Amino acid sequence: MLVHTIKEVRDNVKQWKKEGLTVGVVPTMGALHAGHASLIKKAVEKCDKVVVSVFVNPIQFGPAEDYDKYPRTLDADVKLAEGIGADIIFAPSPDEMYGKGQRLSNDTLTYVAPPYFYVNKLCGKTRVGHFDGVCTVVMKLFNITQADYGFFGQKDAQQFIILNKMVHDLNVPIELIECPIVREPSGLALSSRNKYLDEKGKVDALALSQILNNIKACYNKGITDISALKETSLKFLNENHDLEYLEFVDKDNLEDKTKADDNTLVLIACRVHGVRLIDNILLK
Amino acid sequence: MLVHTIKEVRDNVKQWKKEGLTVGVVPTMGALHAGHASLIKKAVEKCDKVVVSVFVNPIQFGPAEDYDKYPRTLDADVKLAEGIGADIIFAPSPDEMYGKGQRLSNDTLTYVAPPYFYVNKLCGKTRVGHFDGVCTVVMKLFNITQADYGFFGQKDAQQFIILNKMVHDLNVPIELIECPIVREPSGLALSSRNKYLDEKGKVDALALSQILNNIKACYNKGITDISALKETSLKFLNENHDLEYLEFVDKDNLEDKTKADDNTLVLIACRVHGVRLIDNILLK
Repeated sequence: MLVHTIKEVRDNVKQWKKEGLTVGVVPTMGALHAGHASLIKKAVEKCDKVVVSVFVNPIQFGPAEDYDKYPRTLDADVKLAEGIGADIIFAPSPDEMYGKGQRLSNDTLTYVAPPYFYVNKLCGKTRVGHFDGVCTVVMKLFNITQADYGFFGQKDAQQFIILNKMVHDLNVPIELIECPIVREPSGLALSSRNKYLDEKGKVDALALSQILNNIKACYNKGITDISALKETSLKFLNENHDLEYLEFVDKDNLEDKTKADDNTLVLIACRVHGVRLIDNILLK
Repeated sequence: MLVHTIKEVRDNVKQWKKEGLTVGVVPTMGALHAGHASLIKKAVEKCDKVVVSVFVNPIQFGPAEDYDKYPRTLDADVKLAEGIGADIIFAPSPDEMYGKGQRLSNDTLTYVAPPYFYVNKLCGKTRVGHFDGVCTVVMKLFNITQADYGFFGQKDAQQFIILNKMVHDLNVPIELIECPIVREPSGLALSSRNKYLDEKGKVDALALSQILNNIKACYNKGITDISALKETSLKFLNENHDLEYLEFVDKDNLEDKTKADDNTLVLIACRVHGVRLIDNILLK
């Protein structure tokens, strides 16, 4: 069932809770692909009732980012989510989520602010304010749905670690479930932003997963020196790539690693033909 | 029942929710007085089950403030709260609330950050970071207790407005109830910090309520000019008073008033013999 208002979600949730049913929430920005489908499937398996939110959240986009052109495919999203067994697809307008006429700034709106240490690195370094916007909207969705479980993709690994920290620090009564990255047969990690790529772009985009797989293969052969591991990636990059970062951090707390080990998460962000893509791999 | 751990609260709340009972929470820093008693009484009347938290929250005190010497009277607090009918008195340690070894800073902890506009005035002007600390701990308490109703005193009027804004902005599934200021027969608003005053201090402290009552009397006679209303307060101040602010704002959104009207909230903060006291009155 497609609904657009907070009240409709709340009325349903209230009834479900009365019946003692568990609720799962899958927060998305729509443009659903097989990666999202895997999250919804997992939620349907684990929970009695599932809410999939479809909301392109303005406060997590910077002024120079792609908020306006971000793909919006609500009809297809509803079909996909209902096909898997989602009970509610919640697609609010920005006015419904933030209040009509509400200015969207720290001056006028309550934010959930994740720790600087988690935010001032990796994607947060260039996407200033992004994770504040993510935490704020996700906290709203958790409160609206009062979900017992929240489902997120490992694709956005930094986001998951930050949301888990939020849940811990603010004692949010929910458990977060991280689901593996879904990839095309070529290795390309699924992303709604892949729609911005043409055929040539999709080929060059393979560099991200190739770099990560190659690093893991080298690590498995015994190389733990991070500079050496980084160097192996150079051969995959060409003039169509603009590497933003390639970092080795602890999978739980995002602390920089001095040597690669089994707890190391390797993350990459790279512009490919101007399209910003991310990917990551756990060395274990 | 006195409990010290989050788990004990959660286990009880889970059972209550299963039975369909409503839960009220009264967040306090202890040193309970008749003002707190009125909140607990209201909560007991309105809710099936009531949790009173007693926690001197380190992150809402500035480095130069009175965190260490803030009065702690847990035995008496438990007696008072249970006497009125509270079901649980939740008195956690800082380690229990924030995690052992957790550094308490924006660098390492997720905060709830209220809007600058609401924070950068009145008490927030001198108490930098105070309301971030308040919102963060109150959000934690809301999440731990999953309360249907939260009870707060009008004494901390700015705090109540900020918390209500938080509940609205983040869709927290709770309703906040504001309870009237409780005063001594002399007019002095009850406060745990009154314990810092000696007899002479208590006499000089009357200036706050006298100023507010006088302003309201003048308003009732038709004076709406704020400068004129402020001027009437001067006669109540002597060398033992250090006036921090006397402000006229909208009772709902803290916007400055240009003229006094029925929606005007008048707030005062004043050091009396070095003790910082606050009070307020609604002109309607």
